[in-house]
Amino acid sequence: MMLDQVLTHIDHNLQASLDRLFALLRIESISTDPAYRPNMLEAADWLTGELVGIGFDAAVRPTDGHPMVVAHDRDVETGPHVLFYGHYDVQPVDPLGEWNSPPFEPRIVTVGSADQIVARGASDDKGQLMTFVEACRAWKAVTGGLPVRVSMLFEGEEESGSPSLIPFLTANAEELKADIALVCDTDMWDRDRPAITVMLRGLVGEEIVVTAADRDLHSGLYGGAARNPVHVLADILAHLHDGDGQVMVPGFYDGVEDLPSDVKAMWDSLGFDSKGFLGSVGLSVPAGETGRSVLEQIWARPTCEVNGITGGYTGEGFKTVIPARASAKVSFRLVGDQQPDQVRDNFRAFVRSHLPADCRVDFSEHGTSPALRLPFEGAYLRRVRTALKDEWDATPALVGSGGSIPVVGDMKRILDLDSLMVGFALDDNRIHSPNEKYDVSSFNGGIRSWARILAALAEQE
Amino acid sequence: MMLDQVLTHIDHNLQASLDRLFALLRIESISTDPAYRPNMLEAADWLTGELVGIGFDAAVRPTDGHPMVVAHDRDVETGPHVLFYGHYDVQPVDPLGEWNSPPFEPRIVTVGSADQIVARGASDDKGQLMTFVEACRAWKAVTGGLPVRVSMLFEGEEESGSPSLIPFLTANAEELKADIALVCDTDMWDRDRPAITVMLRGLVGEEIVVTAADRDLHSGLYGGAARNPVHVLADILAHLHDGDGQVMVPGFYDGVEDLPSDVKAMWDSLGFDSKGFLGSVGLSVPAGETGRSVLEQIWARPTCEVNGITGGYTGEGFKTVIPARASAKVSFRLVGDQQPDQVRDNFRAFVRSHLPADCRVDFSEHGTSPALRLPFEGAYLRRVRTALKDEWDATPALVGSGGSIPVVGDMKRILDLDSLMVGFALDDNRIHSPNEKYDVSSFNGGIRSWARILAALAEQE
Repeated sequence: MMLDQVLTHIDHNLQASLDRLFALLRIESISTDPAYRPNMLEAADWLTGELVGIGFDAAVRPTDGHPMVVAHDRDVETGPHVLFYGHYDVQPVDPLGEWNSPPFEPRIVTVGSADQIVARGASDDKGQLMTFVEACRAWKAVTGGLPVRVSMLFEGEEESGSPSLIPFLTANAEELKADIALVCDTDMWDRDRPAITVMLRGLVGEEIVVTAADRDLHSGLYGGAARNPVHVLADILAHLHDGDGQVMVPGFYDGVEDLPSDVKAMWDSLGFDSKGFLGSVGLSVPAGETGRSVLEQIWARPTCEVNGITGGYTGEGFKTVIPARASAKVSFRLVGDQQPDQVRDNFRAFVRSHLPADCRVDFSEHGTSPALRLPFEGAYLRRVRTALKDEWDATPALVGSGGSIPVVGDMKRILDLDSLMVGFALDDNRIHSPNEKYDVSSFNGGIRSWARILAALAEQE
Repeated sequence: MMLDQVLTHIDHNLQASLDRLFALLRIESISTDPAYRPNMLEAADWLTGELVGIGFDAAVRPTDGHPMVVAHDRDVETGPHVLFYGHYDVQPVDPLGEWNSPPFEPRIVTVGSADQIVARGASDDKGQLMTFVEACRAWKAVTGGLPVRVSMLFEGEEESGSPSLIPFLTANAEELKADIALVCDTDMWDRDRPAITVMLRGLVGEEIVVTAADRDLHSGLYGGAARNPVHVLADILAHLHDGDGQVMVPGFYDGVEDLPSDVKAMWDSLGFDSKGFLGSVGLSVPAGETGRSVLEQIWARPTCEVNGITGGYTGEGFKTVIPARASAKVSFRLVGDQQPDQVRDNFRAFVRSHLPADCRVDFSEHGTSPALRLPFEGAYLRRVRTALKDEWDATPALVGSGGSIPVVGDMKRILDLDSLMVGFALDDNRIHSPNEKYDVSSFNGGIRSWARILAALAEQE
């Protein structure tokens, strides 16, 4: 069996794979800080060199921001064409003082029985993207080719809002067309069970500013007669939810469907430790919609959260003012077929309907993305599940993610591509935080998993 | 007549009086912000220097916070001994961008026929306190002495809760004993009619901090399951009032009585322009308790106002965070026999009763004072009314004040001193707001009024 030979090759060459990952981790590719622009280029060059070295047609592709790396190997003529997405930029490292070793000097630390690669980007996303690159390398080394046609797209702006992504996808849509996208930026269910993320919540961000008097007023002189916009705002925000955690904006639940009972059963069977999930951040009681499990609340239910509020005097001490204005940043997480524009319109109408005399409200938009839900069944998904089950000896969990991964929506919209999100990170990887790590078992198992997935995708139905 | 000579001297020396006021206005004496501590000392030193210069026995008197300035001139042996109170500290200047000129660079702006002194503190309270100082200066310049014994007390913490006032009054009670206190921190009825304030609302200031999770959470990963303290705080604040503007804290109205009918009749006869009062700040509809006149709402009814609120991300752009905490500054205006400590206790119980699971609330106290009501008749009051009538050619209104002047209560309690509150501010002075101003007519008429009042108080019954 060729696959067995590939897997054996992967295990025998793990140290060389680690050495290459370490070389990438040493490059300080912080995308949000202009001071690191040369390092960004260095990382793109390094990746391109590696991909050319193993036989890809690869190039650094300029954008208005940091460059993309695009690579193709379309030698095989049968089977699906996959587009793999990852990002080579990383988060800033502050607070630097909390790192136990320099963030760009990767090292292996053994904790219990686990060997961990510690460095900024070890997990998010350099370690994850290199699992795929190394799987391709192994296939090529053992068989001289890949089981399916493979393209890769590596972005350098994922940690800074991806300003160039949509223009790049749009301008290169023809070149990037494929049958299925593979995205490696997510977690395993736990150390033993892999996961495929098939639901992503969408997002609507909105800022509201409520204004009453044309200036701040002295609460002694005007208090009792003048409208206080903090009261008005508090009243609006207090009416956003009912006592059962339901969002009260009219029409908000249009397009939201209950979870299919088989999915609900699957999630219930995962044995999610909701007590531990909440307990780790100092909470004990799920605060969302009553009658829903925590997994449902965070993966499959829409939400409304106030992310920030300010009004009046907020400094030290006290100032007896009736402020002229008060404002809040409010975001909605969307699921199913909720329409972002409709949610925004309904919210604005709701706010206006709660405005008393003498108040004005101004709105400003802060991004929207619809929810995404991949079909729970389908040939590619089935094959990937089997491949992961073979590798990990455990049925992969089909999970949701409460956060959004905008590239998945962008590829759907611009390239008409469904994404399979498979990642090998663990929830204790401290991504975006000091001492970020990636387990060697994630790295090795990830390479092996992708080797299997490539083979599985090539199979005829 | 000596008084006529004094009044003439005041008018002839107005420019020099203004120059001295400007020197005081240039000192950035913001008491609530520790960064301005040196400026506070500078202001106290400046005042002491002026008072010594005109023959007072004056000194900067240290406290645990900002210093007091105390001055005495007890040369006359007949007539009452008056204690004049003012404060040399000012409010913060934010929002700085809304000032038309720098707040600590005083200038004269002519609006219609009125010359206005524009600066932070021009009205509250540097302009007002200097009317008394300049009146004393004029008496001394013309006659070599004062008509009555005069002591002065200038505080530097009035805008930040007066933490040192009670200890200072208590420790120096013997020195500060007098027959009547004069307080210059209030308004005229309007540009033509002076006023004597005989009712003051009390104040309870309270800061509440609601905490849920032990850190800020990602609203994608936790939203729907984690408690959001902004929601909790908004809900608490929204329940503070009912639809008729009544405060819903249980027991809040204990000790509140309806206005005596004769007082209500006097107020109704003043022809208060409530439309103009609200319209001048961009409002049109009284927002307080339904069924009460605006004068009642602001002078004779208790209130609850949120003076500041903050939580989560409040910077530019958007951050999808569920904050760990949210806080609000809340103040109550008290009337009649409402007990400040009871109001505070009731409010805390009310907040706690609205707290859901996983939330904690912390309270911090920011000053209390009971409401005050002075007798509507009395010998000193009669003399002061006559002096004011002579100066302004209009019968002074006996009014209430919605703001609290805690020192009046403190002087009553600790020094057993009744206060006559006479001020020359106008209701459009924008105190505590950008572009605070004091009319030159207030300043000049104020100096002249005090010169007359000092003479009137010296008269034998």
